[in-house]
Amino acid sequence: MPNAVVLLSGGLDSATCLAIARAAGFDCHALSFDYGQRHDVELESARKVAAALGAREHKIARIDLRLFGGSALTDDIAVPKGRSVEDMAGEIPVTYVPARNTIFLSYALAYAEVREANHIFIGVNAVDYSGYPDCRPEYIEAFQAMANLATRRWVAGPQRLVIETPLINLTKAEIIRRGLELGVDYGLTVSCYDPDETGAACGECDSCQLRRRGFEAAGAPDPTRYRP
Amino acid sequence: MPNAVVLLSGGLDSATCLAIARAAGFDCHALSFDYGQRHDVELESARKVAAALGAREHKIARIDLRLFGGSALTDDIAVPKGRSVEDMAGEIPVTYVPARNTIFLSYALAYAEVREANHIFIGVNAVDYSGYPDCRPEYIEAFQAMANLATRRWVAGPQRLVIETPLINLTKAEIIRRGLELGVDYGLTVSCYDPDETGAACGECDSCQLRRRGFEAAGAPDPTRYRP
Repeated sequence: MPNAVVLLSGGLDSATCLAIARAAGFDCHALSFDYGQRHDVELESARKVAAALGAREHKIARIDLRLFGGSALTDDIAVPKGRSVEDMAGEIPVTYVPARNTIFLSYALAYAEVREANHIFIGVNAVDYSGYPDCRPEYIEAFQAMANLATRRWVAGPQRLVIETPLINLTKAEIIRRGLELGVDYGLTVSCYDPDETGAACGECDSCQLRRRGFEAAGAPDPTRYRP
Repeated sequence: MPNAVVLLSGGLDSATCLAIARAAGFDCHALSFDYGQRHDVELESARKVAAALGAREHKIARIDLRLFGGSALTDDIAVPKGRSVEDMAGEIPVTYVPARNTIFLSYALAYAEVREANHIFIGVNAVDYSGYPDCRPEYIEAFQAMANLATRRWVAGPQRLVIETPLINLTKAEIIRRGLELGVDYGLTVSCYDPDETGAACGECDSCQLRRRGFEAAGAPDPTRYRP
């Protein structure tokens, strides 16, 4: 089986992405980041998902995104609550973290080179929520072009590094249906930007609203544990 | 003064790069990495250089490049000694670190966005020693193109992010002459891949040989402290 590196956050999208990579026949090397999230719940979810979906290896890189500041996910800035999905459209939210996917993909590139993996999977999505510039297809294409010039393996060899984005054109409901077909247990995943210490979701942040609406549109029961 | 982020390793090239950025009128925000180097000597040099050349701020990001392995600079692989400069030409050495400049530039991108700096300076050089794929102009251009698609500041605004590589077409002797004109104290810098704990250089690794030959060709006294 060829190797792949799969970025895994503990959320719904990246869990589906890992399941898709496994179903496509890849030996998956999962990579998560401890970047000063407010709670450890995300990494615990990532560990459970990696094990449940049969990743061969799961690395957690500690990176200090708080060093520079500039985001509600790493600083003491309130996460917005109660916005409708329509309110979110087209706007870059305060949960934006500067250069986050670029940093994540750069680490994945190093990991891929060492493991001789020609494929990096990332669960970015440009449909439901297009507020993040580093989730767009033109960004992913530019990263891939840069990566093939950056590294010994792909400069020297005939093979190419491919950034795989199987979710990029799917709605949240389509992602959930695909994951359920592949046996993903979404009860293991956490999407909330503001979970409590037990992992229970707030139900009101942008991410909770998109997730809840996705399960409704997919016609599937929502296994999310919301706090009372 | 406009802001710039300057990658600073503690070596000769990045010190010159910082001096050039200062002379060009930038308010410089220096960025170094603690990535599990064998010795702390590099970071100590970076601190001294940042202070001596008037950087406004100096951040040190801790990143764990040993997590994946794959390089003599982070693993227990012997650094080559005694190779002539001609022997080095065109070959990617064991001191290559997978995706290193991509990871460094990604952090610099986050820092630049938060500090509203439209310029990132990196002291890469494609002349004396072209063994690293991530020191070539085509790589730098590809990174810049990607970066301008990746981040809120440069997607939203009229300004562009520019990766500045003032050393890329200079020989080592030209770099040293330029730095001396600008008052760089090269006695503060360390280039050796294998310094002892006092910072004394081995004199025999690729980096020491290029540096020594550079001072000779520049007709300048070599302030490097070599070990006996």
